[in-house]
Amino acid sequence: MQARLDEVKAQLRGALDAALAQYPKGELADAMAYATVGGKRIRGFLVMESARLHGVPDEAALPVAAAVEALHAYSLVHDDLPAMDDDDLRRGMPTCHVQWSEATAILAGDALQAMAFRLLTDDAIGDAEARLRIVRAFADAVGAGGMVWGQALDIAAESSVQTLDLKAITRLQRAKTGALIRFAATAGALIAGDDPDALDRYAAGLGLAFQIADDILDVVGDENVTGKRVGKDGAAGKATFVSILGLEGARDEARRLVHEAQTALDGYGEAAGNLRELARFVIERDT
Amino acid sequence: MQARLDEVKAQLRGALDAALAQYPKGELADAMAYATVGGKRIRGFLVMESARLHGVPDEAALPVAAAVEALHAYSLVHDDLPAMDDDDLRRGMPTCHVQWSEATAILAGDALQAMAFRLLTDDAIGDAEARLRIVRAFADAVGAGGMVWGQALDIAAESSVQTLDLKAITRLQRAKTGALIRFAATAGALIAGDDPDALDRYAAGLGLAFQIADDILDVVGDENVTGKRVGKDGAAGKATFVSILGLEGARDEARRLVHEAQTALDGYGEAAGNLRELARFVIERDT
Repeated sequence: MQARLDEVKAQLRGALDAALAQYPKGELADAMAYATVGGKRIRGFLVMESARLHGVPDEAALPVAAAVEALHAYSLVHDDLPAMDDDDLRRGMPTCHVQWSEATAILAGDALQAMAFRLLTDDAIGDAEARLRIVRAFADAVGAGGMVWGQALDIAAESSVQTLDLKAITRLQRAKTGALIRFAATAGALIAGDDPDALDRYAAGLGLAFQIADDILDVVGDENVTGKRVGKDGAAGKATFVSILGLEGARDEARRLVHEAQTALDGYGEAAGNLRELARFVIERDT
Repeated sequence: MQARLDEVKAQLRGALDAALAQYPKGELADAMAYATVGGKRIRGFLVMESARLHGVPDEAALPVAAAVEALHAYSLVHDDLPAMDDDDLRRGMPTCHVQWSEATAILAGDALQAMAFRLLTDDAIGDAEARLRIVRAFADAVGAGGMVWGQALDIAAESSVQTLDLKAITRLQRAKTGALIRFAATAGALIAGDDPDALDRYAAGLGLAFQIADDILDVVGDENVTGKRVGKDGAAGKATFVSILGLEGARDEARRLVHEAQTALDGYGEAAGNLRELARFVIERDT
């Protein structure tokens, strides 16, 4: 998996740089570029590997993978703002509003969302029907019932006296982090016009396992390794999978979800090895 | 023109409400809806009238018009934020972050952008090729060299010691307000697959005249009529068309641009009466 992930990272850097080069030089373009540096590129990798499984060439999948990473970058920039999670460290660097300004961070996020949609109109992806399927699924993953709505639930939960239970936190995370991961993992099938169901089941388990691993890292992680502040959820008295299930319970649940995700890929046989390995990586990572 | 504008306003309200109904009930959906209330609907009207001129039925143009208004609403919500223009009054009501919170206003803006792109995938617009042309032009109007970049230039100018000259302010406004107006005015031709050149020349004049009229209203307007704070530019020592050209010079330039815009429509004959009237309205309005 690592060789393919490294290859995808290099491809993504090229595609993001080409898209960013369309922006006139200046602080906005600099802040946008800054926000797209680094990251695990898990979402982009999901696009590229699901594409490979459905016979979609790398050059067709790449604009979609870059769009997902641009959108993810926008969501981090806005989530880190003082009015939201108020974070000062991200991917081991000062967050966008610390490095530049709040105004520039808000605009850079807005522009990265627009850039993501622009990338999805790339002719290389396929015929107009295929591109439209992608644009629509992407807009749904961001909007109604998707990422932005999940973040709104998260912000609302923080100012509420009532603590979330397991059902509520699962619903929240399915939207906040799950929707974009599911889009990324099914993108290959969507481009090809194939049934995305198996990939969707894989992504549902993967997305939740990913979030549980994030919650675990917030408790046991090392700031120097994760590149972001840890211990924030506990300090804020926030309900997480760890606060509800306990550390060992959360680890068990993550392992169960990863097994479920891997099983969903049975129909792809050995070709899905990278995606199975990614699921293991997601809960074993220390960053 | 007024009867058609009233008709379009009612159609837009219906289309926006239908799109907003996709969002789960709650503060985010309420804030999004709040941000789409009122407004002159000039951009939506441009879409509907340019569509009529190119034989595109109302039901095909409506999702595009609603998308433009949703995007415009997002841009106002983000521009009004404390870190940006810090406005507390808009369309005669408290701005979104005053009514709700900064976090909710940021997220409502983000969601309105995603909702705009989702609207552009509506089957009613036309075949996949037509919809993709629209998505691409729309993304360009928002992103690289478009609205967000123009707003970034505006924010940068405010913190700069150097005052903008006429050339710089024209360049800024062409991006900040002009790009979306040009998209709206050419949308009908783009949907139909026709040459958008005449409409684009019309929109270029209209967009600048519109901004000059805004600058004039900031000096001579009545807060109770405009529904937003006035006198802000002068107080901030900001360069505007009025500060550079003087009040009478700005009025002359706006009239010249409106004439230029109207002339660009000659090829459409009497059918373009509403658009010619709109150009006059844009510089004669008191709101």
